[in-house]
Amino acid sequence: MKPVNIFKSIPSDLEEEFTELITQNENIRIERIVSKGHTSPASGWYDQKEDEWVIVLKGAAIISFENDGDIKLGAGDHMNIPAHTRHKVKWTDPESETVWLAVHYQGITD
Amino acid sequence: MKPVNIFKSIPSDLEEEFTELITQNENIRIERIVSKGHTSPASGWYDQKEDEWVIVLKGAAIISFENDGDIKLGAGDHMNIPAHTRHKVKWTDPESETVWLAVHYQGITD
Repeated sequence: MKPVNIFKSIPSDLEEEFTELITQNENIRIERIVSKGHTSPASGWYDQKEDEWVIVLKGAAIISFENDGDIKLGAGDHMNIPAHTRHKVKWTDPESETVWLAVHYQGITD
Repeated sequence: MKPVNIFKSIPSDLEEEFTELITQNENIRIERIVSKGHTSPASGWYDQKEDEWVIVLKGAAIISFENDGDIKLGAGDHMNIPAHTRHKVKWTDPESETVWLAVHYQGITD
């Protein structure tokens, strides 16, 4: 058993957003995401069948919610995104890496 | 929907270790833990029926594993602790807060 550091081993080429599986089973999926100016596609929304808890560990991002407008997240900010809450990533800091942790989990109502 | 910052709203009185539920359902439980010199009881081990993924977001800690010895965790270090992996928190920094995030989740084998 050996710890891994969430801020290290970041690919130098971030032309594409980087998503890495940390652990998963049939109930949850924990991912590290590294963005650098990446956003969701300009049109459409994420509409997920699972709940998602997300935290920005480094950097900054703005998530747009269809029904709640824009929410800016800085280092340490976390929120729960219930299933089928339509949202998109509107902005991430283009100057430095934004490191996210996302926990996708099956909701009670699914 | 409003984000909460994991590094803020830390109780000034940390005589006891502080554990706070962030979100849960029947499959997972996400907790914030704030330690300041706190450790597990001197005798015995944690022997959990659920898997646990843990990350130190700030501060420093040492987890002792019955079969793997001591593992030191600093800011950003994370690891998965499978169910029934006997362990204890041997040390946390007594000088400043250590902020942990723990995701307890039901394993496939449970």
